[in-house]
Amino acid sequence: MSLKSKSYNEIPGGITAPEGFLCHAVSAGIKDPKNPRLDMGLIYSTAPCVTAGAFTTNKVKAAPVKVCQAHLKSNDIRAIIVNSGNANACTGPRGIQDAKAMATATADALGLKPTQVMVNSTGIIGLPMPIARITAQIPALAQGLARDRFDAIAQAIMTSDTRPKSLAIEVPLGSKTIRLAAIAKGAGMICPSMGTMLCFITTDAAIGLSDLKKCTSAAVESTFNRISIDGDTSTNDTVIVMANGQAGNRKIVSGGPQELIFSEALEYLMRRMARMIVRDGERVTKFVEIAVRGAATHMDARKVAETVANSLLVKCSWNGSDPNWGRVMHAIGYSRAKIREEHIDIYFDGLIATRNGISAGTPLEVLQAAVAKPEFTVTIDLNIGSATYTVYTSDLSQEYVDFNKAEYAVRIAP
Amino acid sequence: MSLKSKSYNEIPGGITAPEGFLCHAVSAGIKDPKNPRLDMGLIYSTAPCVTAGAFTTNKVKAAPVKVCQAHLKSNDIRAIIVNSGNANACTGPRGIQDAKAMATATADALGLKPTQVMVNSTGIIGLPMPIARITAQIPALAQGLARDRFDAIAQAIMTSDTRPKSLAIEVPLGSKTIRLAAIAKGAGMICPSMGTMLCFITTDAAIGLSDLKKCTSAAVESTFNRISIDGDTSTNDTVIVMANGQAGNRKIVSGGPQELIFSEALEYLMRRMARMIVRDGERVTKFVEIAVRGAATHMDARKVAETVANSLLVKCSWNGSDPNWGRVMHAIGYSRAKIREEHIDIYFDGLIATRNGISAGTPLEVLQAAVAKPEFTVTIDLNIGSATYTVYTSDLSQEYVDFNKAEYAVRIAP
Repeated sequence: MSLKSKSYNEIPGGITAPEGFLCHAVSAGIKDPKNPRLDMGLIYSTAPCVTAGAFTTNKVKAAPVKVCQAHLKSNDIRAIIVNSGNANACTGPRGIQDAKAMATATADALGLKPTQVMVNSTGIIGLPMPIARITAQIPALAQGLARDRFDAIAQAIMTSDTRPKSLAIEVPLGSKTIRLAAIAKGAGMICPSMGTMLCFITTDAAIGLSDLKKCTSAAVESTFNRISIDGDTSTNDTVIVMANGQAGNRKIVSGGPQELIFSEALEYLMRRMARMIVRDGERVTKFVEIAVRGAATHMDARKVAETVANSLLVKCSWNGSDPNWGRVMHAIGYSRAKIREEHIDIYFDGLIATRNGISAGTPLEVLQAAVAKPEFTVTIDLNIGSATYTVYTSDLSQEYVDFNKAEYAVRIAP
Repeated sequence: MSLKSKSYNEIPGGITAPEGFLCHAVSAGIKDPKNPRLDMGLIYSTAPCVTAGAFTTNKVKAAPVKVCQAHLKSNDIRAIIVNSGNANACTGPRGIQDAKAMATATADALGLKPTQVMVNSTGIIGLPMPIARITAQIPALAQGLARDRFDAIAQAIMTSDTRPKSLAIEVPLGSKTIRLAAIAKGAGMICPSMGTMLCFITTDAAIGLSDLKKCTSAAVESTFNRISIDGDTSTNDTVIVMANGQAGNRKIVSGGPQELIFSEALEYLMRRMARMIVRDGERVTKFVEIAVRGAATHMDARKVAETVANSLLVKCSWNGSDPNWGRVMHAIGYSRAKIREEHIDIYFDGLIATRNGISAGTPLEVLQAAVAKPEFTVTIDLNIGSATYTVYTSDLSQEYVDFNKAEYAVRIAP
């Protein structure tokens, strides 16, 4: 997720920057009936689309995820309906019924079939949806569709996010220019993540379904999957990419140079969104890249990176700007990866802390300055092979614990 | 780890309650040279022993663990030398040399061979041992050996523990009475644990080496291994059981009723120590038993129990006395165990919170009262098989984060 590579022209217009996409957002009083905030959004393509989706691997899947997966089969999606404040997860048969009701109401308002609508929900788990309030707002959402509501929809999907996450870029492609745009919401601690991650991407590129799916899978793997540790994904995690071909480019051909350009741009966009999500993690003060190299296998490199990223005590040390390489060694040791303790080198932002498994002698104050930065890299060289893996994570703060200790009591209790 | 089963007569005398064991503790200024506290201890058996040991599975093993494992081969152990304040971990060849120096100095002072001495260290990782200060104290440790220093040695092994952990029991066996005694130190968060767990057990029972090993392995598996999640053990974790036969009982025979009596008593003792360790975990306010039942396989039951016990957000909710069954469902979903969401029931201290994967409708205030207790059980019934697994864990507090955020900065920096 280094951003040193390609950069792109950023353009205004948010999620509606690509041609042929409209959106709108309203409040249905889901987050807080007494103090209405934007909590419902609709994205609509005026033209037919191909759509790729990536969904949570959690075996407890929210009802809207199941409905999305079913609707994606015929792949004639034209709209995304989304709410925040209630995840519609652990809600049983009623949850499925409610998710379908959202799709049906949206289809009715737009003159579509229900299977042309993707449904997304994010928020508290285990509460029934206030479905009457939700469906009542859908006609207004459809009537208000426009290109200028892009700021509102980025806000409408927020839960514990402190700021909206949105980006649109343009990319020259042959004689035309294509546009790609994204909105996302994160929240929760990123790793181990229990906060839902949603990302909706629109593009006016002309591309075939199988190529869009291929590019989406590859980009998700190297971006969002690197901030969500080891299957620890929320019940609702969803990435949806809709491509409507309105840029008028010659259709992107599999294996050609244009596919590479599109693929890189898509990955760039997801990378930027993934980074925004980690930076805005609940009460996060540090953005930390963990780069493992010299591992015997790819899986070993991944185990080490994820174990270090997940260690409570390592995360606490970062919160305190403490260059505690002993805790990093410890986590490497229980990662189940093949290691040789006496070969391990550890660097904090390029400064060696550990050489051959013991202190490298770098003065503590020098290392402290490195981990005091709001962004830094921890490089772990196992020195026994050539495999690498990188993940992106954050510190753990007292404020995180405080924020997360009474969700039900505060939000369900009267 | 239910304590409803057998109970035993507790007796005074701590680790020296069994016949033929002596101990002593002194300060070597390892924890804090300016403000000396007890930080070295010695346990000695006046008679030959059989000794069983269980050690960390972390691939980064502290030097004393490696030395203990080597010394245990000839199994003629007579003494345990231990220090707190420095773990002698990630210290390379010098660490091994220092651990051997501790064994040699102890052997010299007691007229033993170095291989008759077990060496243990606990404390900060990655710093060289102040070995001259340590070995200088060993003659005084040997000279002071007595039966009445048992309180001091329980204190000498403490790191971030807030109270010493010690227990001695007596058990009728045939026409005699045997005694078993333990001291332990925990600290760190228990799961995922990065604080070293040490437990030293003495008994005057007469038992053969292979039987002692068998009883020790079984007891460790059902006690200490249930509080240390999934390989996430410290670099120094060690359990040592020394049996010197001074009770004069007829030697315990494999498979006989006396072996069962001994085995149950040993497990009881370890269970009590394990419980003390969790209760005294860093800034812990809740002791939580997670009992999984109805799993398809033992491994599935274990995955669910450990994943729930390890979830940051679940731990935060307990800290806030929040009966957040949605987070428990979520963690079950990413545990990689075979589950059927619609079959899952969850109980907080016997009160049903979730039935068939959705809210059971029990009033929130009723569930809140259950998780507000300092000790409670979370029962998860997967309802798809008959396998069970239980682990013991704690909440996660803001104070834990605060306590752990600047170890190096506070303890290494001048």
